[in-house]
Amino acid sequence: MTASPTTTTLGPDSDIDQVFELAQQLRVDSVRASTAAGSGHPTSSLSAADLMAVLMARHLRYDWDAPDDPAADHLVFSKGHASPLLYAMFKAAGAIGDEELMTTYRRFGHRLQGHPTPVLPWVDVATGSLGQGVAYGVGIALAGRDLEKRDYRVWVLCGDSEMTEGSVWEALDKAGHHRLANFTVLVDVNRLGQCGPTELEWDTAVYARRAEAFGCRALVVDGHDLEAVDRALTTVADGQGPTVVVARTVKGRGVAEVADKNGWHGKPLPDDMAERAVAELGGVRDLRVRGPRPPATPPADGSEVRAAEPAALPHFEVGDEVATRVAFGGALVTLGDRPEVVVLDAEVGNSTHAEDFRAAHPDRYFQSYIAEQQMIADAVGMAVRGFRPYATTFAAFLTRAHDFIRMAAVSQVDMALCGTHCGVEIGADGPSQMGLEDLAMMRAVLGSTVLYPSDATSAAALTVAMADLDGISYLRTTRGAHPVLYPDGEAFPVGGAKVLRHGEHDRVTLVGAGVTLHECLAAAERLADDGLHARVVDLYSVKPVDTDVLARAARETGAVVVVEDHRPQGGIGEAVLSALASAGQHPAFAHLAVTGLPGSGTTDELLDAAGISRGHVVTAARRLAGR
Amino acid sequence: MTASPTTTTLGPDSDIDQVFELAQQLRVDSVRASTAAGSGHPTSSLSAADLMAVLMARHLRYDWDAPDDPAADHLVFSKGHASPLLYAMFKAAGAIGDEELMTTYRRFGHRLQGHPTPVLPWVDVATGSLGQGVAYGVGIALAGRDLEKRDYRVWVLCGDSEMTEGSVWEALDKAGHHRLANFTVLVDVNRLGQCGPTELEWDTAVYARRAEAFGCRALVVDGHDLEAVDRALTTVADGQGPTVVVARTVKGRGVAEVADKNGWHGKPLPDDMAERAVAELGGVRDLRVRGPRPPATPPADGSEVRAAEPAALPHFEVGDEVATRVAFGGALVTLGDRPEVVVLDAEVGNSTHAEDFRAAHPDRYFQSYIAEQQMIADAVGMAVRGFRPYATTFAAFLTRAHDFIRMAAVSQVDMALCGTHCGVEIGADGPSQMGLEDLAMMRAVLGSTVLYPSDATSAAALTVAMADLDGISYLRTTRGAHPVLYPDGEAFPVGGAKVLRHGEHDRVTLVGAGVTLHECLAAAERLADDGLHARVVDLYSVKPVDTDVLARAARETGAVVVVEDHRPQGGIGEAVLSALASAGQHPAFAHLAVTGLPGSGTTDELLDAAGISRGHVVTAARRLAGR
Repeated sequence: MTASPTTTTLGPDSDIDQVFELAQQLRVDSVRASTAAGSGHPTSSLSAADLMAVLMARHLRYDWDAPDDPAADHLVFSKGHASPLLYAMFKAAGAIGDEELMTTYRRFGHRLQGHPTPVLPWVDVATGSLGQGVAYGVGIALAGRDLEKRDYRVWVLCGDSEMTEGSVWEALDKAGHHRLANFTVLVDVNRLGQCGPTELEWDTAVYARRAEAFGCRALVVDGHDLEAVDRALTTVADGQGPTVVVARTVKGRGVAEVADKNGWHGKPLPDDMAERAVAELGGVRDLRVRGPRPPATPPADGSEVRAAEPAALPHFEVGDEVATRVAFGGALVTLGDRPEVVVLDAEVGNSTHAEDFRAAHPDRYFQSYIAEQQMIADAVGMAVRGFRPYATTFAAFLTRAHDFIRMAAVSQVDMALCGTHCGVEIGADGPSQMGLEDLAMMRAVLGSTVLYPSDATSAAALTVAMADLDGISYLRTTRGAHPVLYPDGEAFPVGGAKVLRHGEHDRVTLVGAGVTLHECLAAAERLADDGLHARVVDLYSVKPVDTDVLARAARETGAVVVVEDHRPQGGIGEAVLSALASAGQHPAFAHLAVTGLPGSGTTDELLDAAGISRGHVVTAARRLAGR
Repeated sequence: MTASPTTTTLGPDSDIDQVFELAQQLRVDSVRASTAAGSGHPTSSLSAADLMAVLMARHLRYDWDAPDDPAADHLVFSKGHASPLLYAMFKAAGAIGDEELMTTYRRFGHRLQGHPTPVLPWVDVATGSLGQGVAYGVGIALAGRDLEKRDYRVWVLCGDSEMTEGSVWEALDKAGHHRLANFTVLVDVNRLGQCGPTELEWDTAVYARRAEAFGCRALVVDGHDLEAVDRALTTVADGQGPTVVVARTVKGRGVAEVADKNGWHGKPLPDDMAERAVAELGGVRDLRVRGPRPPATPPADGSEVRAAEPAALPHFEVGDEVATRVAFGGALVTLGDRPEVVVLDAEVGNSTHAEDFRAAHPDRYFQSYIAEQQMIADAVGMAVRGFRPYATTFAAFLTRAHDFIRMAAVSQVDMALCGTHCGVEIGADGPSQMGLEDLAMMRAVLGSTVLYPSDATSAAALTVAMADLDGISYLRTTRGAHPVLYPDGEAFPVGGAKVLRHGEHDRVTLVGAGVTLHECLAAAERLADDGLHARVVDLYSVKPVDTDVLARAARETGAVVVVEDHRPQGGIGEAVLSALASAGQHPAFAHLAVTGLPGSGTTDELLDAAGISRGHVVTAARRLAGR
């Protein structure tokens, strides 16, 4: 099973017999690579090989030597487990060699991983959590048409099993809503999932009806009829709206021993079977494909990113009561001067204040309606294309998109999220609207930054800072208006903390953020009346956290009370404990957080009932200080 | 605006004029309640009042004095923000009085919260995170037909804004797939969302086409034509499959000052406007509704829950290598003797071993296909009906359902989740498949139990224990086979921990769970060879955690190394730190966790690269112990 030395090159005018040979080569290499690796999904690759052969030979406008060409098409493997097929395409394109495919696939320290990730220059987004690739494709298509003003097309290969994910329909709804003529999904309807037949098996008519009902054109084809596939992909070029090619295929196609047989999902063929399969497929080939190239175009309008003049942030008067979400909205407007900044809303923009951006920059404001997963996917797609998205909704509802955020981290995307209405502070709306788990979720995201300002000045400054942070950053904002604490121009370095009260006689440190910082400040006043001096730390940067400030406070005061409007797990309290442990500091410690099920009420009632109000802070501080 | 003393009772044979009066009363009371509360969503209530008046007067088979009647229909307000309407219905049914409605709605300490929760006896599930009620309704309908064998119907009131949530289409797909003739959604197409017009506005034909494409019957009606609504709801009784009633309505209907006007979402009418509105609506009424009653039926087969004989757990031989997911599957089979136990799969049952249950109990095994949100919603629906669901998928993909899990906790549901394939341990499949954030997510769930067994014996025992736990419990299982550590019959109390090695000369404690426990055991061997005695703790119960065992180990050994195949945030390390802090113990501490982006590789390669292998444990232990 070694590669033949004779190389034939297929140009974009290759005839259909040559495309057939290419498809067979993709099959052969999919089988060889997964057998060599000892794991992988050859049968899921075999079903889609014809689709991909036609696409890469005749339709995908792509220069494999220049994957960053801004005019190039994009291909997303939503069925990321078909990575043998994708990597076989890389080989056919000459982007990788046979040796890399055969000796590194799924091996440690190499880039041809079990599921594709952007460590590969030809991969935009990580896939492998099914139902996401379609959504990212919509985001990229939206960026291309509406932000970059480019003519590139986005092609998504999608499995039939993943069509049961609601996220696929969120995505197709948006493809239809935006009339994304540059967006095409190829659904590989191979009828068999991991455990057996799929929900709809080969009922291609149902897939088509659904796609059409969601505003897409549906083209049903035999996914192994190369001419038919070619006609369908040619049709796409007419620009008549988003297209879903519903391709009836056979899982394991071309290898009689596994074709259309259950029990072969995610299993490499044993050596002897692989040998028979390669023979049945016509043996190892060494075709090279040179498909259509991207058009040579001058840089488009949207692609120019000019250096922004630092614009003035909104001014807030110390002592005025301003909600941090209002400051967030104001800072977004300021950030609008940077052409790469885009803002996404999930139909709560008047609550999050994301909407403030729309008036100034309607062309860079995207309404996702109530579709948090697609909002994040759009943000990822835009980030992949060089934009800096701010995606916004209630903190509670970001949990809806947790898996997308997790995968965005695997894609190593840079983007900003803002979750408003955190905690019991929101009051009467009740627990369904209270973000009480978001810090735990966002802290555990790989490479994330988690910010939680307590006043408008810091909220605005941190909002701006997020535009230059690597990875996924998260700003947690508060519903209610609380006093402005800092004057204009105050610096809030990420990873820092502010000491708002301190003195040489401090006997306890109170750590808060958001509404609880204000409770800490009030508690410190009461304690001071009593002769107990408290240091107060504004922990606006939850991750990274300011270990130095915390360690010094612990050392100097000997006692730390952390108060947070969040569940006790995974939030500020545990961040502080981790920091103190790493610094070898072990103060007396109290942790006030929301342990029960809140209901409706006023902010003060709910803070008090949750045990995180100033009164509880005073009690905890006195207990720790032995008073 | 006080209630009139004259009470008229509407029976199920009430004429349409009486139903109109009822609808007007629901409107009046929605306006009054929200104005009195100073917050709430009157206009979203007004649009759906006619739908609900017809439903409760003529179709909903419900005894408001006996909400637990097993034959009763179920009503889910997916648009939970229309709580004024729901509570006005309670009043019209005589379930609550006018005083409760007017003086407690949205107030602290009372049950008429901003969004409905099951603290109310007439509410099955908490709503308020949009797009979820439809999904829960499917779960209840499935439980009724397939488990309880009851004839009750499930009615869901859904907003049009939430139809952009993919979860709605996951749900309707399942309603169609299961041909749930007992399931009806009423979509209140009032055209206006929170920020402005909805995506589809009044395009009822599109909603209908989508519903039909997803296997439901669609009936388009004028939602204010009482006769038409009544005809549609009568049609539902023909048992011809799931039905989506697409009702064109007007937001704010009946109150000219706000009807079909943008800018009135989620705003109570000011006192003067409310007064004019009540007058326009014909003033305060005091109608009482007595709609159709549930049929008096003998207890159905499925509703009998017999006391289970404790069945024998599968046997595992100490030292044999068995994956904990295999033990989970085996224990599920044992649990099958308990008729309330049901198992849900998201098309990975041969990986999670949930599938093992199917052969023994096919009638209580539910294939969700790849639709994690709906899987959890089905589980919630079944739990609400008294069953004990075990919902299962990869740990990584449970993040897809985070918001549903969060809301299930608000619903105070008892159910078990199992996430398999956690951590880098899985090997070649790569980061998209690695659950590395699940502990943080699940620990932060209100009232959750988090279990993470290291061997087959404990995995089986804990799987069984979950069937009797309150709230949401989570079992984290491992892909690979690791040695069985415990003999049959060993007890694993929830909240406990096992000390696997200890001695009077212990100088360090190694804490692990899952694969890292085995790394700790191997490290302890190496350290012992070197004369450094290590205590080893199996932290199979991550929440609640065994503070006593940890505190004693910290006190006696002075140094603790925690090793986890999870992100550093929100997992075992922070759970241990919180426990130690609460016990006032401050050992030297090291925390090994997965900080970088893993790729593919073997388990050993990936554990080592992540810094959580035995070698790293040895190094950390030596450092802490000063060796």
